[in-house]
Order: sequence, then C-alpha cells, then structure tokens
Amino acid sequence: MDRKHQYQPSDLDSFRAILGPKGFSDDPHEMAPWLQDWRGLYHGKARAILSPSSTQEVSAIVAEACAAGVPLVPQGGNTSMVGGATPDESGAAVILSLRRLNRIRSLDADQGVVAEAGVILSHLHDVAETIGSRFPLSLGAKGSATVGGLVSTNAGGTQVLRFGTMRNLVLGLEAVLPDGKVFNGLAPLKKDNRGYDLTQLLIGAEGTLGVVTAATLRLVPAVADRAVAWAGVESPAMALALLRALEAQSGPAVESFELIPDDALHVVLKHIPGTRAPLSTQHRWHVLIDYVAEAGAQAALQALLEAAMQGDLVQDAAIATSLSQADAFWRLRESISEAERAEAPLLSHDISVSVEHMPAFMEQAALAIRSRFPSVSVTAYGHLGDGNVHLHVRGQRGDDAASWRQSTGKAASDFVYTLVSDAGGSISAEHGIGQMKRDTLELLSDPVRMQVLRSIKNALDPAGIMNPGKLVSLAPAPQKP
Amino acid sequence: MDRKHQYQPSDLDSFRAILGPKGFSDDPHEMAPWLQDWRGLYHGKARAILSPSSTQEVSAIVAEACAAGVPLVPQGGNTSMVGGATPDESGAAVILSLRRLNRIRSLDADQGVVAEAGVILSHLHDVAETIGSRFPLSLGAKGSATVGGLVSTNAGGTQVLRFGTMRNLVLGLEAVLPDGKVFNGLAPLKKDNRGYDLTQLLIGAEGTLGVVTAATLRLVPAVADRAVAWAGVESPAMALALLRALEAQSGPAVESFELIPDDALHVVLKHIPGTRAPLSTQHRWHVLIDYVAEAGAQAALQALLEAAMQGDLVQDAAIATSLSQADAFWRLRESISEAERAEAPLLSHDISVSVEHMPAFMEQAALAIRSRFPSVSVTAYGHLGDGNVHLHVRGQRGDDAASWRQSTGKAASDFVYTLVSDAGGSISAEHGIGQMKRDTLELLSDPVRMQVLRSIKNALDPAGIMNPGKLVSLAPAPQKP
Repeated sequence: MDRKHQYQPSDLDSFRAILGPKGFSDDPHEMAPWLQDWRGLYHGKARAILSPSSTQEVSAIVAEACAAGVPLVPQGGNTSMVGGATPDESGAAVILSLRRLNRIRSLDADQGVVAEAGVILSHLHDVAETIGSRFPLSLGAKGSATVGGLVSTNAGGTQVLRFGTMRNLVLGLEAVLPDGKVFNGLAPLKKDNRGYDLTQLLIGAEGTLGVVTAATLRLVPAVADRAVAWAGVESPAMALALLRALEAQSGPAVESFELIPDDALHVVLKHIPGTRAPLSTQHRWHVLIDYVAEAGAQAALQALLEAAMQGDLVQDAAIATSLSQADAFWRLRESISEAERAEAPLLSHDISVSVEHMPAFMEQAALAIRSRFPSVSVTAYGHLGDGNVHLHVRGQRGDDAASWRQSTGKAASDFVYTLVSDAGGSISAEHGIGQMKRDTLELLSDPVRMQVLRSIKNALDPAGIMNPGKLVSLAPAPQKP
Repeated sequence: MDRKHQYQPSDLDSFRAILGPKGFSDDPHEMAPWLQDWRGLYHGKARAILSPSSTQEVSAIVAEACAAGVPLVPQGGNTSMVGGATPDESGAAVILSLRRLNRIRSLDADQGVVAEAGVILSHLHDVAETIGSRFPLSLGAKGSATVGGLVSTNAGGTQVLRFGTMRNLVLGLEAVLPDGKVFNGLAPLKKDNRGYDLTQLLIGAEGTLGVVTAATLRLVPAVADRAVAWAGVESPAMALALLRALEAQSGPAVESFELIPDDALHVVLKHIPGTRAPLSTQHRWHVLIDYVAEAGAQAALQALLEAAMQGDLVQDAAIATSLSQADAFWRLRESISEAERAEAPLLSHDISVSVEHMPAFMEQAALAIRSRFPSVSVTAYGHLGDGNVHLHVRGQRGDDAASWRQSTGKAASDFVYTLVSDAGGSISAEHGIGQMKRDTLELLSDPVRMQVLRSIKNALDPAGIMNPGKLVSLAPAPQKP
C-alpha cells in the first residue's frame, strides 16, 4: 500500500482514518465494558474498538487488518455464553463492533427482512410487527443480542421446535471475508445449487471465517391467537410422549415445549420475588407449552390437555387466562438460571443428544453424576423437543463459588461432557464453542472432524486474524489427560 | 505403504484386492453403460468400476486412491442432469459406484431412516411406507436415483414447497473424506453448534469434497388424504397470488404447486399418447396442485378454488375424482420435457430467482430471448413457489438437433444465464453444476464466491482426486469473452 509506505502511520492510524472519530475509540473508559463478557467470566485487552457504519468500512478495516496482521474480534451485543466475543489477554487484538451497522435495508412479508449485523433482536421483532409479520426466534438476551451474533452463533431459543435455529431462518447473507472482500449472498433464493453453501458455512462460524455484515431473514405471519399452559408430568419420557401426542393432533401449533424439573421450580419460587406455582398439585416434572392457532387457541389446547389427562400423559394442567398469567408462567422458566445461582454455585451445560434418547439420557446422567459427585445437585431443563437441555450441576449452599468451580465443578463438568460425547451428543447445542469450550471440543471431538474444521479455517483465514483463539485452535491439540 | 513397495502391484491390483471380484470390474462391456450419462450427452473413459459394499471398503479405496493419485468419480444411479457422474475422456479415473452400498441401517418414524448411499429413492419410499411414514422428496428419476447422489446434489423435486430440498431433510451424514478417513455425523442432533457444519458443506458438493456413504433422513407421516387439482390462470403473477391465497388459508396443506404454460400443454397433448386436457376451457397458464389433509382434502381444496374463482384468481379448475385421474394430471406435467424434445431441438435451463420476482422475470426473459433469437420458442414451467422454473429454449421443427445446439441453442443458453445472473438469480436451482455448467459458473459468478469455493476444494482435497473437473475448476479461470 503506497499510502502506508509513504507516511508509515500505525495500523491504528489507518483504522482511524477509515472510520473517523465516531467509529474509533482507544479510550480505556469507553472500551472497558466491551473487554469482558456479560457474566464477568472472561476478561481481555484490546488496542481499540472499531465501529464501522457500513459494509464498505468493514471491508476496508478487514483488508487493512489482514495486511498488517492485526487480530480482529467481532462483537455484536456482547451476550456470548462462551466468551466468544471477548478478546484474549495479549492485548494484540482490536474489537470490531458491528453495533453502528444497524439499518433495516428492506422489509417484506414474503421476501423477508434484510437486516444489518448490528440490528438488535427486539428491534427486529418490532420492525416485523409493523407489517403484520414476526421474526420467529427469541431468547433471553433479545434486548442486546444482534443479528450478526445470532447468525454467527446459529442461535436457538424457545421456538426452535417449530421454526428451527438461525440456520433455518437465514435466507441470504452478506459477509466480509478475512481478506476484506465482500461476499454478497443476500438474494433470498429458495433453491440454489451453485456449489458449496457458503451461507451455511458462515452461520455458526463464530466470526472465525469472516464478519457477517447483513442477513436476509425469514418472516412468518404474526401470531393470531396464542395459549400458554403449564402441565405436571411424571417423567421426561412422559413429557416427550405428550409432545408427540400434541403434534400428532395439532401439527405445527405447538411452538414451544419446555421441560422443567420440580427442583428447579422450587428454587425459583424460593429466590424470585412474586412468583407462585401454577398448579396446587405436586409433580416431579413440569412442561410449559406455547400453542398458536388462527383462533380458539385456548379452547383447542384445553381439549388436547384434557385428552392427555384421560390418557395419563398429563397429571394436571393450567391454561393461562390472561397475558399477564402467561408472562408469569414464562417468567418461572426464564428465572431458573438466576434462581439456581442465588441458591448455590452453578455450572450450566448446554448439551444435546437425539430427541428420542434425551429422556433416558437425562435420568442416567443425573444418576451417574450424583454417584460420582455426591455433594452436587443436578437439574436438567429446557428444549426437550429439540433434544437440547441445559444441565445444571450445582454445589451446596455456602460453597465458595470460585473455588467450587475450579475443583468439584470443573471435575463434574468434564464428566458431563464425557457422558454427552459417549452418547453421540453435542457438548454445545446452541451456545457455541467460543473460548470456554474450545479445549473440551478438541479433547472430545472425533479427530476427523477437527482436522476438517482446521483445514477450512486455514484455507479461508490463512493469516489467522479472525477471532483468534475461538472455536478452533490452530496450535497443536492438547493432550488427553 | 510396505505392501505396495514390496510387490509393486498396480493401483488397480490394490483396488481388486480390497474389493474382491464382486466389487471390481474392468470389463469394457460391463463398464459401457456407466461411461455416459443417461441422456447420452457426455461420454468418458475409466480404468475400472469399483463397487464397495461397506463404508470400510470405501475408506480403503479412497485412501489408496489418495496415495496413488488416482482420480475417483463417485456414481450412484447415474441420473445427473449436468454430467456430474460421468468421467472425463482422459481415461485416468476409476468410477466409484455406490450401488452395492445399499442397506437400510435403521428405520424409525421420529428418528428418521439411516440409508446407505446406494439405496434407490423409490425403495426408500417403500421402506418408509412400511412404518406409516414417508420420505417427502420425489423426482422423475426416483427409480434410479440414489441417496448418495440425492444428498451430493442437494436434490429438489416437486415437494420442495413444503418440505425443502435434501438440505432440509438430511439429519445426519456419514462420508469418506478425500484422504480416506471416515466422518461420522449420522447422529440426528436437532441442535449442534460445534463449529462449521460439515454435513451442510457436503450436501450439494457433488462428490468433490468426499464420498457420502450414508445419511440419516427425516421422515414425515404418510399422506392421510390427498387431492389433486388442475387450474387455469391468467398469468404467472396470478398463479403466485393464488398460491399465497391458498397458503394463507390452509397453511402447509399445499405440497406441490407447478406452473405450466399453455404451449407446453399443447405440445404434450400432441406428442404423448393417451393424454387429454383437464379443462375444456382455454387458458394462457395452468397450475397443478397437490393438497394434503388429515381428511376431506377434496372438499377443502374445492372450497378454496371456488373462493379463488370468486376472487378472479382462477379462471377454471378441475379436481381429480380418482387416483388414476390424479396420475393423469401429473403425467401431463412430467411429460413436458419428452414432448418438447419430440417437437424440436431443445435446451433446458434450471434457474431460480427470488420467488416474488419470478413472474416478472419469466415474462421479461421470454420477451428478451425471442427478440434476440426470433427463431426459437420459449417456455418456462415448474416450481413457481420455489422461485425455480425450467426455462426451455426450443428450435424449430426440422432443425438438426446437434448443429442447432452448437449454434443458436448455445448462444441462447449463454443469453439466458446472463439474464438470470443479472437478476441476482442462480444458473442452477436444483440440478447442480457438474461438467455442463462449470465454465458458465466460472464466467458468471462473483469472483469472491469462486475464490472461496476453490479454497475449500483445495483445503479438503489437496490431491484433487475427488470427481475432478466437476463443479469447480482448479485451473485458471476462463476469460470473459
């Protein structure tokens, strides 16, 4: 680059020149909140935060970073569960924030919405609503999580049962590749067999193969009528049988089906103010159901649940009679992590096995963990219909959180991941790998899979500048203990 | 390899030793049918046909081929539309037939069917039926096409509207990679965020990144009640409006929605014995509709079409009153290619643009082609709801087929692909690239896309032995004319 050789500015000067003052900061106070993850588990350093406001600016930054060998850490809402958006402690990297790249480029019920990477999920929900549509993916962090991060982590949430993960909702993609070139695949082609599917490759790549700058996302009709029920069931196996019965009779009407163990409900009732149990009867397990129909959702769901009670699939059930009651049911589900953390130190494991195996796996894994680590509690809850639960291993009340995590917690986590791996499951169902699970992935994955991952990473990002240290290590594999 | 250096057998001897006499042939008579594609457009040479009967045998062959640098051409039912399974004329390659690798490994309504690469599609349909399920993808070549080929080409067909292409139906995959290692991803995990999705990468890779040996495929409930209708409509735009109206009122009940121009119907009636027009009235365009419901499909579809006639979306319609009448309607659709070929020389273009743009594109493209090539006829028919039509350019009755294809046909084809490309569409919606469209892809694709395709190909198959000459050329790009 002539400019560079003539004036010899530092790479930071180059970034500053590309972005102007609004897009560049190396002020420690401004940078601080973005140098750690939202749970405070990971802390890193960065030389600057770059905030481009156009795809062209992203392209110019990445080309410059590639030429200068500067590591880039893409960041959206900074809501990663696995430290995927936090730089390492070397201080070599710059953060590439996509938050200013936040326009809705177009909006159409049939053709979808073209949203830039920095658009926040709850804003996307609102935008879809303005044309009588909805974007059918939601999760707890919707007020912060951005389109770029959702795409790059193949986010899931509570509506995957019906609509799938981001992988099923992305109709097209625009991304800046590790050399700065722009891949434009935004056209929403339903059928396109022109070779390897680069869009699918970039979804879930955690920013290690390029930077997602915009996506064309599928919209579905707004909810016409919705009913929410809470039901008591005997076991995870009965819960799955209930789901299959509901699906057989109502097709795609069941949009969410969350499994909750009684222990988790008790902990929520204990720690979260203003919560109450939906049922007066006692049950070992509970399910939370969202049912959507053109009309008469409440009556239809009631009839289905009454039939399920006749068939002994359900022990008792309550249907929310108001929106606020429905919200209260969902609040119980969404407070589990917070409540369990208030109870005692906790490690959460976002795991999947095949759907039909999950009930047996849950029971067997809980037994095996408690027999090996008698001091811990085990709860598993979540997206039973996706074969994905969040398996919580909890210490005892009064345990010191940091030291428990390093000792019993760490050992129990390793054991959980080994159980999942032996069952042919995934150690990351929806949260990704990031830095948290990178070494575990390396240890437990089929070496054939890791070899292909590494080949692709090396081929597309030979300089190794894209989110280094996340997902796949380019250093030699750690040794099995 | 010690064995090799000791005895110095040829690589063919090694293959013969791995496979035994049932799995090896270099007999010219046995090989002949597999050295050309089914339409006789492509002819090649091969040193032998290898027919392994297990994944282990495939693995051993590929490892040997990798070590010896022998090009492999994977082949299933040999039904490619783009010469994707025909070796080149150099005679350097061996054909790797997957037809003996044809077991159903497991079968479960919820967990799907695990079928080996050589299982024929119509057999898969039959197997699914034995448990009250169905595999919801079908196409004309179902009596020959195999699972491995369907996966490797991301096959589509007439039910994509509801169930998607193979990409949506593959729950897991087993493949032998270009170095002979086995990638085992058969476990049907609904959610799995352990990095780049290798299953999605192999789907549609046309055997250039490895050999698919088995797949876990989604099953859906068998059809309870089905109605088939033929309707006359004014234009492609009205047909799409009709589809949207049907979908709004009946959700996923519309499984197929095929658009047929009147010219194509006339040619079918002229050339295919025993065919008759479903409607006595005249229409510029026709649609063929499959409607599936738990019960009462015929009455429901009739009511929907009557409402559509009231709303002037439909001019006239007939619902098949028997299975044989339904088959007769479908035979009209499926005879279009054969009939048009009987009428005059023909070139077919499997193209897509975004669904909402397709009606306008069809009208504009037909005008543009006829204005530039006044001697040709243009018809476009097929999967309107997927934004995918087969655009036929037909010479005049009496034109010499071979010379027309080389002259006017070739020029018109180039023009069609340029129009599609300029409209942001795909030059291959469902048939793939193979050898037929490889140079066109190179000429018309965004160079950024081609660079990434080539990087991935080089990274995973550095020896270049997997289906060489298909999909992506590793030689320098051809120059734009």
